[in-house]
Amino acid sequence: MHPQSPLMGQMMNQPLLVSGILEFAARHYGSSEIVSRRVEGDLHRYTMRECHQRARRLANALHALGVRMGERVATLAWNGYRHLEAYYGVSGSGAVLHTMNPRLHAEQLAYICNHAEDQFLMFDVCFLPLVEAFAPHCTTIKGYILMGSAAQMPAHTSIDNLLCYEELINAHSDDFQWPQFDENAACTLCYTSGTTGNPKGVLYSHRSTVLHAYASALPNVLNVSSRDTVMPVVPMFHVNAWGLPYSVPLSGAKMVFPGAALDGKSVYELMESEGVTFSAGVPTVWLGLLNYATEHGLKFSTFRRTVIGGSACPPAMMNTLIDQFGVEVIHGWGMTEMSPLGTTGGLLSKHLKLSREEQRKILQKQGHAIYGVDMKIVDDDGKELPWDGVSYGHLMVRGPWIVARYFKDEGGDVLQDGWFPTGDVSTIDADGFMQITDRSKDVIKSGGEWIGTIDLENIAMAHTAVLQAACIGVPHPKWDERPLLVVVRRPGQTLEREQLLAHFEGKVAKWWLPDDVVFAETLPVGGTGKIQKNRLREQYRQHLLK
Amino acid sequence: MHPQSPLMGQMMNQPLLVSGILEFAARHYGSSEIVSRRVEGDLHRYTMRECHQRARRLANALHALGVRMGERVATLAWNGYRHLEAYYGVSGSGAVLHTMNPRLHAEQLAYICNHAEDQFLMFDVCFLPLVEAFAPHCTTIKGYILMGSAAQMPAHTSIDNLLCYEELINAHSDDFQWPQFDENAACTLCYTSGTTGNPKGVLYSHRSTVLHAYASALPNVLNVSSRDTVMPVVPMFHVNAWGLPYSVPLSGAKMVFPGAALDGKSVYELMESEGVTFSAGVPTVWLGLLNYATEHGLKFSTFRRTVIGGSACPPAMMNTLIDQFGVEVIHGWGMTEMSPLGTTGGLLSKHLKLSREEQRKILQKQGHAIYGVDMKIVDDDGKELPWDGVSYGHLMVRGPWIVARYFKDEGGDVLQDGWFPTGDVSTIDADGFMQITDRSKDVIKSGGEWIGTIDLENIAMAHTAVLQAACIGVPHPKWDERPLLVVVRRPGQTLEREQLLAHFEGKVAKWWLPDDVVFAETLPVGGTGKIQKNRLREQYRQHLLK
Repeated sequence: MHPQSPLMGQMMNQPLLVSGILEFAARHYGSSEIVSRRVEGDLHRYTMRECHQRARRLANALHALGVRMGERVATLAWNGYRHLEAYYGVSGSGAVLHTMNPRLHAEQLAYICNHAEDQFLMFDVCFLPLVEAFAPHCTTIKGYILMGSAAQMPAHTSIDNLLCYEELINAHSDDFQWPQFDENAACTLCYTSGTTGNPKGVLYSHRSTVLHAYASALPNVLNVSSRDTVMPVVPMFHVNAWGLPYSVPLSGAKMVFPGAALDGKSVYELMESEGVTFSAGVPTVWLGLLNYATEHGLKFSTFRRTVIGGSACPPAMMNTLIDQFGVEVIHGWGMTEMSPLGTTGGLLSKHLKLSREEQRKILQKQGHAIYGVDMKIVDDDGKELPWDGVSYGHLMVRGPWIVARYFKDEGGDVLQDGWFPTGDVSTIDADGFMQITDRSKDVIKSGGEWIGTIDLENIAMAHTAVLQAACIGVPHPKWDERPLLVVVRRPGQTLEREQLLAHFEGKVAKWWLPDDVVFAETLPVGGTGKIQKNRLREQYRQHLLK
Repeated sequence: MHPQSPLMGQMMNQPLLVSGILEFAARHYGSSEIVSRRVEGDLHRYTMRECHQRARRLANALHALGVRMGERVATLAWNGYRHLEAYYGVSGSGAVLHTMNPRLHAEQLAYICNHAEDQFLMFDVCFLPLVEAFAPHCTTIKGYILMGSAAQMPAHTSIDNLLCYEELINAHSDDFQWPQFDENAACTLCYTSGTTGNPKGVLYSHRSTVLHAYASALPNVLNVSSRDTVMPVVPMFHVNAWGLPYSVPLSGAKMVFPGAALDGKSVYELMESEGVTFSAGVPTVWLGLLNYATEHGLKFSTFRRTVIGGSACPPAMMNTLIDQFGVEVIHGWGMTEMSPLGTTGGLLSKHLKLSREEQRKILQKQGHAIYGVDMKIVDDDGKELPWDGVSYGHLMVRGPWIVARYFKDEGGDVLQDGWFPTGDVSTIDADGFMQITDRSKDVIKSGGEWIGTIDLENIAMAHTAVLQAACIGVPHPKWDERPLLVVVRRPGQTLEREQLLAHFEGKVAKWWLPDDVVFAETLPVGGTGKIQKNRLREQYRQHLLK
């Protein structure tokens, strides 16, 4: 059966464009609310219909500023309604939205701006000092847009050509027809926060973004419906907030943006006042929220479900969320290179009769590939390994929202035989559940065998006196590498090396036991909230050699 | 911002093909079960992984039979695992699956087969006499495949070249790589059961089918997850069973096929024995199931959610399902020309605080456009009407899974300014909820005003002595047309004309009141289970003129 001038289907020919998502939401769920805690501290609320109006004003404004199809417009902003307008106003009009991480240093931001050849930079009022710091090093930016009103414009600034967002869009009409173009055109740009080398840009297309939005709203994934009130805690500068700015409008749900206030108290109060049912974020944010709620004896009245990603949810945190607060926990796994979602956890119908403990073990896994994503595990020679839940190897993925190459071909060919190497090491079981064992670069190679550090960290975290734990491989004269555990104690708790090592007994093979434990005040954390193990390895590289 | 050689995204380039759905299901949800009640009466069970193996054997077999890319292969079969294998084996290999409705007459089937130029016909054992009846009139079919084992082959048949499905696929290996081709290639073909003229074919593409599968599995739509056990009661020959053969495998759910046994007892017992959580079908099937369960004082132990479409769910049935049986009811609306899903009912987060009665009114509407579909209502001149819940007009739709033209251009240009006219009349309210008022051809034009027949039927159906009701416009000397109600009483119930008309008082405007009521033993029903109002209009056209 050869593809010889095939018979074509006769359905309408419509490109998948992100403008279509907001247009759909405004027409069909026009009264759905969007509530934002502004960086000023107050709450702003409006509807999808108004969001669409303002996004079209922004599109007209960008056109008037001379922004052309495919040109990049950067943002430096927390989660809020103006940032959402930029998502659609920029990409919808054919330009490319480049979200930047404000936790990066000024030099890194300047590097990224110049590499992306950004034409304009839109930023929250609170980031003015940061922008003033790196703007002199930006070579392509024609203008800076402060995302606020005229009253918020600074009296003095070192920035040339500083524009006011509200004045800019109010000077333009909302009469704008979203252009129709090739769905493979670039839509957004996000740089990876690689631990080595310069950041690399991932250039998403409209097609990949819309397909990811469809897939990520599915019941097996984020499970967003028009009955939900969704709070994206994961930042909109962090891989498009896992696609929530797209998947929530297409679902007609109410949206709640927390702005810059991500401490436990602020998040808790906003969730309660707005009736948040679903939220998504990294474990560190939930740590703050759960500590606050526990300390004050509080419950959640509407919060029912959360997706946790960025790094694995420690089992102790999962138990607290489920057993103490009645919040369903779904593990999400992905990468900037994957738009970002690749797998989500969950149960199969045959698991519904299992015990709580057996179900919990399944929920601890990173879960199933989302329809659209395929995955496999391979050994060092690229040979596919069996799906038996035991064999572990390098995790490879492919699919229509997975990167084919980096922006401007940085890093050259990244695919291996059509598959993207994730840099993770994992198992996959016969039912298709994937579990990350480690990062390829974090796995400890001891006497020719691999030791997974995540298992060891989870055991440490299950100890009541442990707040945070990181396990790293450090050089060893006989075994090449051996595990060292770096631990932050909970405030007010005492815990000694021997007590913690005793806690490991019977839980892992003897040769997996950490050789030593060191206690630290804090662990180094990167721009996306992950523990920087490379810095710990550097710090402790002499530890077992002394 | 003009589309001048736009910057392209740099994501993997993968076509959306239905073979990818089954391959995904087999790899990632390989142990999910598929249970089928066979036409022989017994239960067959296997896994997604085995389904994928057999679908690949079928693909090899079709190749060996000489079936080429784009050629049509027809089926005449109930819902079962072999039909599912045909869905993927035929379309996945690049041929076009043409599902036929066995409730059609032999002449209609022969017309459709010849129009489609089917090369092979696959059919369930029970349809042998039907196939023998129309096969002599088929001019393009090279072979007939009986979907059964060697033991089920007839000793004598008038059919030339009758092949045995099991022997055919067992003669071939499951070593088959699904071909990759243009996602706009034809995938399946389904003929509309138009009440006038010859049936017209709708030719779905792989792209439209995959996008419809994504959209229809969303929480706002069918809401299928890996925790579900799904029974498609809607036939696989009826617009691809509303896409369930695609949306269920991509969700990893367990699938239960009822075969030919759609009576209340058979459906109830299968739901209970297999733990069905979700099912979809037309109101007439639920009528039988609910009557059976009520008569025997039975409850559902796992059945929690149903989508009802084909025609509107009578409010009385919705109340019974929700209040008596605790089954959530979602209205689905669509057409063969729409793959078929266009809208589904449901609540918004702001509705959760409303009373039961207010919520029920919202659930009675056909609901929101599914993301991907856009809709509008227009007057006779094509002018768009407001979304105020009161204005009603012709409902127009567009989207990537909506027909652009019929197969072989039957009927010529069907679109109006890029929109497909559905033939339905509806309102849309400010929150985007669409409600069908009538079919354009069923609406009663009385003294220059429109009377919607569905409202009148719903009121009649709410009377406890009414089993079925149809309202039709019949010629009237003064008003052009006036409403006549044709009613089937519940067994053992007495009900007279005046009692039923009294039941309408205060529920509709006086000039909407039916001019007369006639009682019938049954109502004429077409091949897809819908009441044939054109036959009723023909039968009663003299009724008010006498």
